Amino acid sequence: MNARAARLAVGSDDSASRGEAFIWSNSFDRPTLVLDPSIAVRNFHALREGLGRARIHYAVKANPAPEIISALAGAGSRFDAASRSEIELCLARGARPGDISFGNTVKKPADIAFAHRAGVSLFAADAEAELEKIAAHAPGSRVCIRLLVEASEADWPLARKFGCGRDMVLPLLARARALGLDAAGLSFHVGSQTRRAAMWVPVLDQVAEVWHQARAAGHDLRLLNIGGGFPAFYGERVESPARYGARVAKMLRDRFGEVPEIMAEPGRGLVADAGAIAAEVLLVSRKFARDMHRWVYLDIGKFSGLAETMDEAIRYQFVTRRDGEPTGPCILAGPSCDSADVLYEKHLVQLPLSLAAGDRILIRNCGAYTFTYASVGFNGFPPLDVVVI
Amino acid sequence: MNARAARLAVGSDDSASRGEAFIWSNSFDRPTLVLDPSIAVRNFHALREGLGRARIHYAVKANPAPEIISALAGAGSRFDAASRSEIELCLARGARPGDISFGNTVKKPADIAFAHRAGVSLFAADAEAELEKIAAHAPGSRVCIRLLVEASEADWPLARKFGCGRDMVLPLLARARALGLDAAGLSFHVGSQTRRAAMWVPVLDQVAEVWHQARAAGHDLRLLNIGGGFPAFYGERVESPARYGARVAKMLRDRFGEVPEIMAEPGRGLVADAGAIAAEVLLVSRKFARDMHRWVYLDIGKFSGLAETMDEAIRYQFVTRRDGEPTGPCILAGPSCDSADVLYEKHLVQLPLSLAAGDRILIRNCGAYTFTYASVGFNGFPPLDVVVI
Repeated sequence: MNARAARLAVGSDDSASRGEAFIWSNSFDRPTLVLDPSIAVRNFHALREGLGRARIHYAVKANPAPEIISALAGAGSRFDAASRSEIELCLARGARPGDISFGNTVKKPADIAFAHRAGVSLFAADAEAELEKIAAHAPGSRVCIRLLVEASEADWPLARKFGCGRDMVLPLLARARALGLDAAGLSFHVGSQTRRAAMWVPVLDQVAEVWHQARAAGHDLRLLNIGGGFPAFYGERVESPARYGARVAKMLRDRFGEVPEIMAEPGRGLVADAGAIAAEVLLVSRKFARDMHRWVYLDIGKFSGLAETMDEAIRYQFVTRRDGEPTGPCILAGPSCDSADVLYEKHLVQLPLSLAAGDRILIRNCGAYTFTYASVGFNGFPPLDVVVI
Repeated sequence: MNARAARLAVGSDDSASRGEAFIWSNSFDRPTLVLDPSIAVRNFHALREGLGRARIHYAVKANPAPEIISALAGAGSRFDAASRSEIELCLARGARPGDISFGNTVKKPADIAFAHRAGVSLFAADAEAELEKIAAHAPGSRVCIRLLVEASEADWPLARKFGCGRDMVLPLLARARALGLDAAGLSFHVGSQTRRAAMWVPVLDQVAEVWHQARAAGHDLRLLNIGGGFPAFYGERVESPARYGARVAKMLRDRFGEVPEIMAEPGRGLVADAGAIAAEVLLVSRKFARDMHRWVYLDIGKFSGLAETMDEAIRYQFVTRRDGEPTGPCILAGPSCDSADVLYEKHLVQLPLSLAAGDRILIRNCGAYTFTYASVGFNGFPPLDVVVI
């Protein structure tokens, strides 16, 4: 990235600059994620303004730094947890049990029981056996049936792992009621990093059809959980959270009418730009005498925080102290002895020709899905460090 | 896998059964890797017998459990380290500094300096800037220049991340000498999990040509590092370490004649069958009423130890207490709320039709590249636990 692009990426965003200024004015002895929770709070307010009356449950898995949870709880956010320890974290950081949903469709019975005892009363399911677990360990709870939707436009589509086909929804709602559960609603997910609000259209059409079918069949659906998918900036223009949220809200009104309760589970959209990584160049080389591109090896890679470069799905932005000088294309790789630890190879990254081992490099918008993905110590490298400012 | 296949996979291997017996006779509250270091030692002796006079440097990254390092050091193994902390581990577990090679071609200057102070004297490099780092921080050390080879037959080919093209080898050897280093030899890697010894042929042909060229050009090459690639059993037949090693040794003699020093860096081949994972089924479901296959969700996934299922490269074997009953095809997925956390989808796994949530499942040959890959806590799940028997 050249200097002009770097300026454009940040624009006049002063908050983003706080973390970056912190990185440039400090030194780090290993790759470090610098987090600014105030940015997550700002994003939360903007998205809430756009989404109107929808309740926002922050998807904790995107970034479970305790300071992020505290800041969002203080701002009035609710939470969506994937596991028992995420529920414990939210409770310890000021969330009320009734404001936490247990959204993982694959739960351990002991964790369901724990959540129930703690006062969590909203669970997700997409299978009969899961409903049976919930009925056994959290009797009488509210459940959302997760619908599998086709959403191939997202940058990180969610494939078919979660949700049931539409022909399973009515039987599962009926089964939930028979088990004594409150079959309150439907949930779905458009796919992570759904860059434009317009991409929601085909998904909402699918969900609305099932929603109205279920109501016509006598199921008293009151809760629509629209999941996440709210995008972050990774070099391609995205709408602001307020505008994006407002567009989604309008689409919902058009298709569902007056739904008693709407909830959303943004993760990436709230925290991605709340973090930047301080890293270092370990080696710059060419493999052949006449190679047109260089290989740039960083001290951070796929196994130490940048797992979302898998298939080059998420494209981070890089800033160096040499930006503004002439650039050339680079393959970017991590430090481990694993050949899979290559960050970008199909999409070459433009970096200064003068870049050399020992240079510092800053990676933008790394607040989501980074430090918890880091391995415990592959190749003997420590996990990504985290500093909150 | 049905019961007959399960029996065939273990065969009459009593040592492998020790770990499995331990798993079935104990309970675990989270996914646990059970390691038996005596199997790594047995594999070490078998491979050494096959390879003859080659020195074996165990690739620590494959499994850095302290007990494995101690056991191999006691058996006379040398070590190949990827980082400072791997060197520290080997030293703490009885390895002599002179028996440790620092084989990562991308090293931090401070780590090179540390290794040099500790007495490590053999380093790998594939670029001029790396040689300069070694000359500055470990003056006079021995270096191997790593050659990039074409090796598409391995199950986990190493792509182009490591090694230099053949036109760079002579200039790098010359540069190393000019920097006051001992340009002792060449290294390469055939690719991880190279199932048959015959697959080494095209790679050894490439390396031998460069080797003889370099010697003809006046470089006094004395050390040939043949890297790793020694395979483990993952359902497809592999040759025994002794026989495999003997075949590779013969190919080396045929192509290189009398090389003063040969070293090998087996990782997976020594430790894969020294470990098995105790896991649990969290959910069995179908997505559509007429689905022919089931989805089976385990409490372990790509982010908690089974990272090598990436692209379904490594195919683990599964054993349940219901083996022998009728089976059907399953997609296997991990417990996290990440859609990428699917283990096998293209290659369906045959599992008992009666399999249900709560059932225990044992995963074979997980001793290599598992626990250190586990994330520090993605989705709030703890890393893979390790028990050494």
